Amino acid sequence: MNFASDNTAGVAPAILNAIAQANEGHALGYGGDDWTARLQDRFSELFETRVRVFPVATGTAANALSLAAISPSWGLVYCSEAAHINTAEANAAGFFGGGLKLVPVTGNHGRIAAEALRETLAAIQPGQLHRGQPAAVSLTQASDLGAVYRIADIRAISEVAKARGLRVHMDGARFANALARLGCSPAEMSWRAGVDILSFGATKNGGALCDAIVVFTPELTDGLAVQLRRAGQVWSKMRFASAQLAAYVADGLWLRLAQASNAAAARIAAGIAGLPGLRLVAPVEANELFLEVPSPAMDALEQDGFQFYRRSPTLARFVCRFDVTESEADALVAALKRHCAAPARAAE
Amino acid sequence: MNFASDNTAGVAPAILNAIAQANEGHALGYGGDDWTARLQDRFSELFETRVRVFPVATGTAANALSLAAISPSWGLVYCSEAAHINTAEANAAGFFGGGLKLVPVTGNHGRIAAEALRETLAAIQPGQLHRGQPAAVSLTQASDLGAVYRIADIRAISEVAKARGLRVHMDGARFANALARLGCSPAEMSWRAGVDILSFGATKNGGALCDAIVVFTPELTDGLAVQLRRAGQVWSKMRFASAQLAAYVADGLWLRLAQASNAAAARIAAGIAGLPGLRLVAPVEANELFLEVPSPAMDALEQDGFQFYRRSPTLARFVCRFDVTESEADALVAALKRHCAAPARAAE
Amino acid sequence: MNFASDNTAGVAPAILNAIAQANEGHALGYGGDDWTARLQDRFSELFETRVRVFPVATGTAANALSLAAISPSWGLVYCSEAAHINTAEANAAGFFGGGLKLVPVTGNHGRIAAEALRETLAAIQPGQLHRGQPAAVSLTQASDLGAVYRIADIRAISEVAKARGLRVHMDGARFANALARLGCSPAEMSWRAGVDILSFGATKNGGALCDAIVVFTPELTDGLAVQLRRAGQVWSKMRFASAQLAAYVADGLWLRLAQASNAAAARIAAGIAGLPGLRLVAPVEANELFLEVPSPAMDALEQDGFQFYRRSPTLARFVCRFDVTESEADALVAALKRHCAAPARAAE
Amino acid sequence: MNFASDNTAGVAPAILNAIAQANEGHALGYGGDDWTARLQDRFSELFETRVRVFPVATGTAANALSLAAISPSWGLVYCSEAAHINTAEANAAGFFGGGLKLVPVTGNHGRIAAEALRETLAAIQPGQLHRGQPAAVSLTQASDLGAVYRIADIRAISEVAKARGLRVHMDGARFANALARLGCSPAEMSWRAGVDILSFGATKNGGALCDAIVVFTPELTDGLAVQLRRAGQVWSKMRFASAQLAAYVADGLWLRLAQASNAAAARIAAGIAGLPGLRLVAPVEANELFLEVPSPAMDALEQDGFQFYRRSPTLARFVCRFDVTESEADALVAALKRHCAAPARAAE
Repeated sequence: MNFASDNTAGVAPAILNAIAQANEGHALGYGGDDWTARLQDRFSELFETRVRVFPVATGTAANALSLAAISPSWGLVYCSEAAHINTAEANAAGFFGGGLKLVPVTGNHGRIAAEALRETLAAIQPGQLHRGQPAAVSLTQASDLGAVYRIADIRAISEVAKARGLRVHMDGARFANALARLGCSPAEMSWRAGVDILSFGATKNGGALCDAIVVFTPELTDGLAVQLRRAGQVWSKMRFASAQLAAYVADGLWLRLAQASNAAAARIAAGIAGLPGLRLVAPVEANELFLEVPSPAMDALEQDGFQFYRRSPTLARFVCRFDVTESEADALVAALKRHCAAPARAAE
Repeated sequence: MNFASDNTAGVAPAILNAIAQANEGHALGYGGDDWTARLQDRFSELFETRVRVFPVATGTAANALSLAAISPSWGLVYCSEAAHINTAEANAAGFFGGGLKLVPVTGNHGRIAAEALRETLAAIQPGQLHRGQPAAVSLTQASDLGAVYRIADIRAISEVAKARGLRVHMDGARFANALARLGCSPAEMSWRAGVDILSFGATKNGGALCDAIVVFTPELTDGLAVQLRRAGQVWSKMRFASAQLAAYVADGLWLRLAQASNAAAARIAAGIAGLPGLRLVAPVEANELFLEVPSPAMDALEQDGFQFYRRSPTLARFVCRFDVTESEADALVAALKRHCAAPARAAE
Repeated sequence: MNFASDNTAGVAPAILNAIAQANEGHALGYGGDDWTARLQDRFSELFETRVRVFPVATGTAANALSLAAISPSWGLVYCSEAAHINTAEANAAGFFGGGLKLVPVTGNHGRIAAEALRETLAAIQPGQLHRGQPAAVSLTQASDLGAVYRIADIRAISEVAKARGLRVHMDGARFANALARLGCSPAEMSWRAGVDILSFGATKNGGALCDAIVVFTPELTDGLAVQLRRAGQVWSKMRFASAQLAAYVADGLWLRLAQASNAAAARIAAGIAGLPGLRLVAPVEANELFLEVPSPAMDALEQDGFQFYRRSPTLARFVCRFDVTESEADALVAALKRHCAAPARAAE
Repeated sequence: MNFASDNTAGVAPAILNAIAQANEGHALGYGGDDWTARLQDRFSELFETRVRVFPVATGTAANALSLAAISPSWGLVYCSEAAHINTAEANAAGFFGGGLKLVPVTGNHGRIAAEALRETLAAIQPGQLHRGQPAAVSLTQASDLGAVYRIADIRAISEVAKARGLRVHMDGARFANALARLGCSPAEMSWRAGVDILSFGATKNGGALCDAIVVFTPELTDGLAVQLRRAGQVWSKMRFASAQLAAYVADGLWLRLAQASNAAAARIAAGIAGLPGLRLVAPVEANELFLEVPSPAMDALEQDGFQFYRRSPTLARFVCRFDVTESEADALVAALKRHCAAPARAAE
């Protein structure tokens, strides 16, 4: 029973079918094909504005190249201490950004607080040219602790950012999970709330081999196109990537998949609510649970066949895949009750 | 009738099937899966030595990250003036290599000559620390003008390189085409001839969404693994990439595909041999033909429905896809006879 | 009365004389001159081991190029949160290091604690190739809060570092001040305590236009020489830089200058000891004082003609120049008594 | 008798005096001092427009940071094959420019021809986003073969450049020599002819430890200021650099020095004119001579005590310092007659 990551899952069948169906006739390379052209239209419709969508191989590429597009190489990019870009991508942002620097800003549950950002910026004098320059903010939606920014949060942060000329990036590796949670439109959660550029995740939510960058601010497009090419992120047979993304958002598939994994996480959270000896470090608002669990209980869970990620000796992460079953969720609840509730009491 | 590029073709069905078949059960992310483990064994067997194979999204990524792995950021990397890395990848090598510099070396038909490399290196004093330092050589096999290095050529270049401590990279975007042409083993054309690291192309020869880096020199592996991660080239669902590469080399598929496109190119070359007014700028040894064609004849070919690439006002490139048909090849021969032979005579 | 920075001071006359005296005859460019050759010998004698010393224009260059020399571009470099490299150099280390990342480690008074480093490293699994890799530690001596590492501290940190294969850099912008404080030899405070490479500051302590990198680990030398060249840090008339550094360390000048500024800082610290309403945030062990001072008191000090640096609304930095006078120090003490002691009491 | 380089010379006494005279009182660091403020005014007057002048340590820094300021990291920068930035600076431009690429353009005597640039640009389709993008042109004035662009040449190149949106950089390591030759104003040879940013050399012409970047296009200034800081090119005691540059241009000193070295070179050229067996590869228009000389004759010259630079086995470079004497020049003429004329005849 695998709760290690959403990327241990397979691929939604409709997406595999789309790859196969793209295999007809000849097509211009490097995105000059009809599938990629149609993808532009489809995403523009989805986001209710003209966007440019660039399929890329991974979320790391989406994040790092997005940040490099909105920050000069001497820029400071504000993010949560817990942000994936800060903890898990081998400083890809610093690399693609030519030395740009990620700067943690406080907040709760893996999120930035608008007020903390305001204070951070207030402490930096404009015109102090001997230091890095504030350039951008990156929000992880859903956050890396499984929480979700509300629309008002995003707007508040964007306002603080734009008042100082900073651009706003959203790391939407779990964009669909957050969207499913909030029940709002893609536009409301992105450009209408001030987002300039979005890492649009698909892989973690039933996708196969591509995520995307969605650009809302047109002047970023041309430079980014060249950067993607030399970053080795422009497939010559792009149609097989574009087809995946088109299938992902067709007929609400992406939202159904995200609802399923969100629901499983909520089911687990409900199942363990109120148990002594178990503490969630953040509210469960997407498909992840972060639980304080004693180390021996983690051992016991593993012996029972549960896979999950030990973030620290006392913090465990459980991620619900799009194809997790109710019985898997219930089995995890039962095991947590068995191993964690009791030993934790003993430890008190 | 599309002779514009080999990447306008679709994908060999066996490769698409392999993607679908990889969609079973759960698997560890980022290459920790069984498909990727088996791929290591399969390629090691294929190359008759223990290799490390890293699937990557594109040939540009394979080339640039390979060069960054074998050159310090102040390195000089010698290549043909016509090399893809020098002309068509937006200086990805310079970017990933932190400012490494590509330096053209002369030779014929898109190839470097060992003697020219020797002279170039002889003019650079060791210990001259105020200039870029010779670091590596990159060979494009087959070359970007459709010619193929012989084993002895590769060995001679490697010897010159290694005598000065330079490492050797092969851009094998059309490795299979060259291999099919020479009829030798993958080992003979790579590490046995001195190659340290190989960009192993699949996309141009019936692949879908991945190429690979094959490392023969073990000390390059760990650093490269980190670099790939932060380059956004490590898919979380790696199994769907590894499965493609495994299918590509299974049962000789890759060689059959390359033989087909090579044969079509040879058929066209034979068909136009001896015609006045038509000149091949390089021998046709893989699946590409580079023909001096007057500009009005190019217009006429396009009006007849032929797609190809105008490299200059008087140089046309025709590339044979793995699925080109004999009738397409013959139609091109007939059209070339019709449009090119006559006007060229007139121009004399 | 200027306590804003040690770089507001002029230059020790002996150093200016040395520049003038280097203006005789012709000399090979780019460090091929006799002055630079003699500098190698002089510093090797000073450090009691064969070193390589590279004059550079600034401490930022010394730090960033030193770190780039001991860390791969995917490296993590541990330093104090307060370190100059982390707060004040516009991420030069990230830039020259091709995206290397600075990671704060806790400790007191601008210093890293060996135990905190040990815990940080223990939390990172070797072989986890999907994240940045621990590569180096950077110690600021004296620290950016005016404290000084003891020899045992440096040794303890080096041991933790070397047990994991990390290299050790010392930012010695105020190396002389720390040395004067500890009364030990340059060797004891550097390579004998595990330091691989040193930013050797001169500017802040009576120098003019150059600092230096001192390399204790010979294999770093050749690569660094090329990097310096392309970093624009190799003067063609190097003799005029080397002469400055030679004069700086001749006849104990550097230590006398540091003793003077240290003594002035100690005099001020003694003068305000025990006063209510004034709090030093770190012990005064070199030539800097960091005082918690209410904002209105800072205004009053400025109105009295004192220049200093407001690190925050309630934290003031006072730096003693090499040529500060006792009467300047006493005037500051008097003013602090006047303005700070009383209002602070009022604020209680 | 040293003709190896102009950087083997000492420093003009007025410049050394200026360093000494700047040593009075205290001054704000990092360019916040009065000397640097006055330098802005002085250079603005000199160039007859408001400029921003940044002192930097070396010409390599001036060139590389200027190019990084006018080209995106994916830019192509056109220059002469012989340009110092292309041959002698360890690809500093590629490094500081994040992977920008230098592209040689043909012309004569180390100069670019406007027509060649026009043809090069015409072959690149705008909107081809899969390759590097034309971004800038760099002119070396005087050229690296000792020739000088005429004003009309610079204007013609700038026009071609600007018609495609490219910016124009001038590498003026020998700006004064070219200016002295042409007898025009600094404005005419720079911004009035289309130059956006200038590497203003002083070191080779009697300076000591600094050159400068002069910015004519104001929007480049702020970003460049930050870049210089993190490039380690902003001295904390900037006044000692600014004072050098102020002295360099005071009372026509820079032009007198350049006239002297130009005159010596012209005297040598006149002395060998018409001699059989000696061939200048470029007209002598500044302070350098490039002579085809047989290898044995080079040996003989060295035995006579002449120092010069062997660019190849048959090409010698002789550079006249600002303080070369007429008798040194005449001695070189005599030696060239002795050793080169005769053996060359014999070789015919």
